[in-house]
Amino acid sequence: MTPSTRSRKESGLPQHSWRVRLRENGSSSRRVLVEAISQAILAADPRTILRNKVKVRGNALTVGTLSLKLSDFRRVLVIGGGKTTSGMALETERILDRWLTGGSVNIPAYTNPWPKSSRIEFNPATHPVPSQQGCQGVRNMLKLVGQPSRDDLVICLISGGGSALMPLPAKGLRLSDKQKTTHLLLKSGARIDEINTVRKHLSEIKGGRLAEKLYPATVVSLIVSDVVGDRLDSIASGPTVPDSTTYSDAYNVLKEHKLWDRIPRLVRNHIREGRNGRLPETPKEGSKIFKRVHNFLIGNNTESCKAAARALERRGYRTLILSTRIQGEASEVGKVISAIASSIREKQLPITAPAAIVAGGETTVTVHGKGSGGRNQELALSAAMSIRGLPRTLVSSIGTDGIDGPTMAAGAVADGSTVERALRRGLDPDTYLRENNSHEYFKKLKDLIVTGPTGTNVNDILIAIVGSADQKSDTTRRSLGQ
Amino acid sequence: MTPSTRSRKESGLPQHSWRVRLRENGSSSRRVLVEAISQAILAADPRTILRNKVKVRGNALTVGTLSLKLSDFRRVLVIGGGKTTSGMALETERILDRWLTGGSVNIPAYTNPWPKSSRIEFNPATHPVPSQQGCQGVRNMLKLVGQPSRDDLVICLISGGGSALMPLPAKGLRLSDKQKTTHLLLKSGARIDEINTVRKHLSEIKGGRLAEKLYPATVVSLIVSDVVGDRLDSIASGPTVPDSTTYSDAYNVLKEHKLWDRIPRLVRNHIREGRNGRLPETPKEGSKIFKRVHNFLIGNNTESCKAAARALERRGYRTLILSTRIQGEASEVGKVISAIASSIREKQLPITAPAAIVAGGETTVTVHGKGSGGRNQELALSAAMSIRGLPRTLVSSIGTDGIDGPTMAAGAVADGSTVERALRRGLDPDTYLRENNSHEYFKKLKDLIVTGPTGTNVNDILIAIVGSADQKSDTTRRSLGQ
Repeated sequence: MTPSTRSRKESGLPQHSWRVRLRENGSSSRRVLVEAISQAILAADPRTILRNKVKVRGNALTVGTLSLKLSDFRRVLVIGGGKTTSGMALETERILDRWLTGGSVNIPAYTNPWPKSSRIEFNPATHPVPSQQGCQGVRNMLKLVGQPSRDDLVICLISGGGSALMPLPAKGLRLSDKQKTTHLLLKSGARIDEINTVRKHLSEIKGGRLAEKLYPATVVSLIVSDVVGDRLDSIASGPTVPDSTTYSDAYNVLKEHKLWDRIPRLVRNHIREGRNGRLPETPKEGSKIFKRVHNFLIGNNTESCKAAARALERRGYRTLILSTRIQGEASEVGKVISAIASSIREKQLPITAPAAIVAGGETTVTVHGKGSGGRNQELALSAAMSIRGLPRTLVSSIGTDGIDGPTMAAGAVADGSTVERALRRGLDPDTYLRENNSHEYFKKLKDLIVTGPTGTNVNDILIAIVGSADQKSDTTRRSLGQ
Repeated sequence: MTPSTRSRKESGLPQHSWRVRLRENGSSSRRVLVEAISQAILAADPRTILRNKVKVRGNALTVGTLSLKLSDFRRVLVIGGGKTTSGMALETERILDRWLTGGSVNIPAYTNPWPKSSRIEFNPATHPVPSQQGCQGVRNMLKLVGQPSRDDLVICLISGGGSALMPLPAKGLRLSDKQKTTHLLLKSGARIDEINTVRKHLSEIKGGRLAEKLYPATVVSLIVSDVVGDRLDSIASGPTVPDSTTYSDAYNVLKEHKLWDRIPRLVRNHIREGRNGRLPETPKEGSKIFKRVHNFLIGNNTESCKAAARALERRGYRTLILSTRIQGEASEVGKVISAIASSIREKQLPITAPAAIVAGGETTVTVHGKGSGGRNQELALSAAMSIRGLPRTLVSSIGTDGIDGPTMAAGAVADGSTVERALRRGLDPDTYLRENNSHEYFKKLKDLIVTGPTGTNVNDILIAIVGSADQKSDTTRRSLGQ
């Protein structure tokens, strides 16, 4: 199916602008792969998710087990920010229809076409580097909300990138102070949870502070996760989620990484004041702030993995969703996925062909070379070497946002013939891997998977397909086993 | 069960000298882990394998689907070499009993206690560095066989390490020539299949040449695999298996790696003569040489994985044998195995707890630091960091030979509390991983898995166990999801 052919005119939304493109080579596995990837991305599509998870019937709004009477509220507002928020906001407007009072959301300045709405204001903001534009957008949201009351319902749309797209620093700090501190932490090798501990204590809305500002309104946060493991306090730094860290924790992180004397003076003062109890802490679990706050994880990698698995099962493949939390060096993860595909092929373990392995997560690449590539394409290149010669076996990996590293591809597919085909063209896989040049490799082989930007991001999806054994491979196996 | 308690007196064999030792901490998972590892090693125990796979009833010898009448043969001889050959030979002697004419096998010089037999000669040989001792042992075997005839049955016992333990070079070459060539290839970064291509063409018995020497006798090769993927022509360089490579291939490998002008002159001459057809090629598939040669893979990693899985299933764990071909950087593989354990714990994917993942293969460690460790312990250390905080979740990895790297441990176990326990002792996991100091880390935590040398080697076994969810974790999950 091609999602782009669906008519979406009734909602005033642009049609899906993405389509999964992959060279056909007569193998049915490739056709099925395109279907599975399409379904995985569709399951993460903000509009699809909203439509499936948020319902208005009469005056009742239902999300999961929560049901609210819309007529109880004086105002129904939409705010938020993230890379997928534009689609989420438009669909929320369509679903809430006449109940929606107004909205103000931050979306990437590069969004094209720019969404149109008469009731929701779209504030341009920047990502991954935050800017004053984003700060202004947050001020717009807070201005729209004004003095919240118990008669207000505020719907927060949160997704990946929200941290940079909603960067308003705490009062008394400048954006540049926050940025400099983050930069120092990144360079020092601090872990992402350590960086977040500090950032939450330098922000006006992160770490539950947005919920604090909205109190005593009812808050429904609709969250699409781009964080492996889906920790709600990590996605966009959890603006409506209790924070478990303190100013003292932030201080300890900076001390441990020997940055305390190197951060801007204003930041040092701010954290010192916080530690001394002269600034309020981020709101904690159990605080009354969160009494009427409902956080819903409505889209994540797991949903996309499941959608891909269903598509594969419909085509007769036994499937296994290995994990939705894959992390590690892309080329090494490629070896492990290949080892599993190879075990299916040769040993009928862990399942019997025709079979497919689906996994999700996000790998990393340690850059050694100067080539062009991304983590998904590098994973596929490593897999190509590991499954070399295996019949009817393929390994693919894509970023659900459609953008793998600084390339125009979402990912790539490798099969048992990839290395031979490339060698015939003079492409040595070792060299291309060493140079982190996976994009050039698969481009020359015409084995890129291209989707265009999908408007969503729930990390990466890995799919390995092992077709059914045929007569030929049985013969080979017998002769080896003699 | 403790294999060491079995009475083995009836066979004249020493008792199992290994026993799986692991600190108990009251967790049932650890007790089950010890059982599973014991069963995995037992399934690879050469005596157990021989007893299960090779039967003599009356005058009939059966191995798999092959049945031979022992009374048809004038002589029944046992030859071979490998790290597990001592146990294999003693058990073969017991099984063949009065049918055995004699034998001569190469075993590691460090074997202790030295096996005793009245009919089989045990030749000391060295591993991993080959020596003249090993060459002499091969000459002893060939002398025992003498002029083979169709009335002879030769049983070849082949296992890992056989390449070094049976190092006789081709006529006209010295052992030092072969060694220098291998050393240059290893240093050049050549792949193992490339190295084998060259080595087979410098050897008197590798690459099927032993089968050639035994022609026209009936040959039954009993092979225990220490090669990931179990390619028979790779295990001990396949002395009784057709070789698919040629002198020209060997020449090309040396040329490609720019070693042709650096290898010893005798080796260069030898390969040149071979290419020019003045020396016979290694025997190829379809040759009459192999007409009466029967190669049986009787022990491998898959059998051990299956034995571990059966032990876990008996204790009520859902199990999945992920792959028996895991390769890659140990610490990265640790992350992937942890991602799967974590998905089971948090998402009930790919299976529902109580569950266990079993995998086999052999990882590698890129050494950066100066610490003490091995690939299995390093994998466990990386896993400790990835499963930090997960309740009732453990990841373990062991070498089935009982020797992980240059340490006295077989491997180690990590669980969700490992990192916290270590931090309380001032052990920072990042530092220990960076220094490749996993052995010290787990030694201090008393979480080593120690077996002693097991007398076998079918690579490594990884086991992850995720216990059933309890009330506590359910509460945690609910509060996060609110």
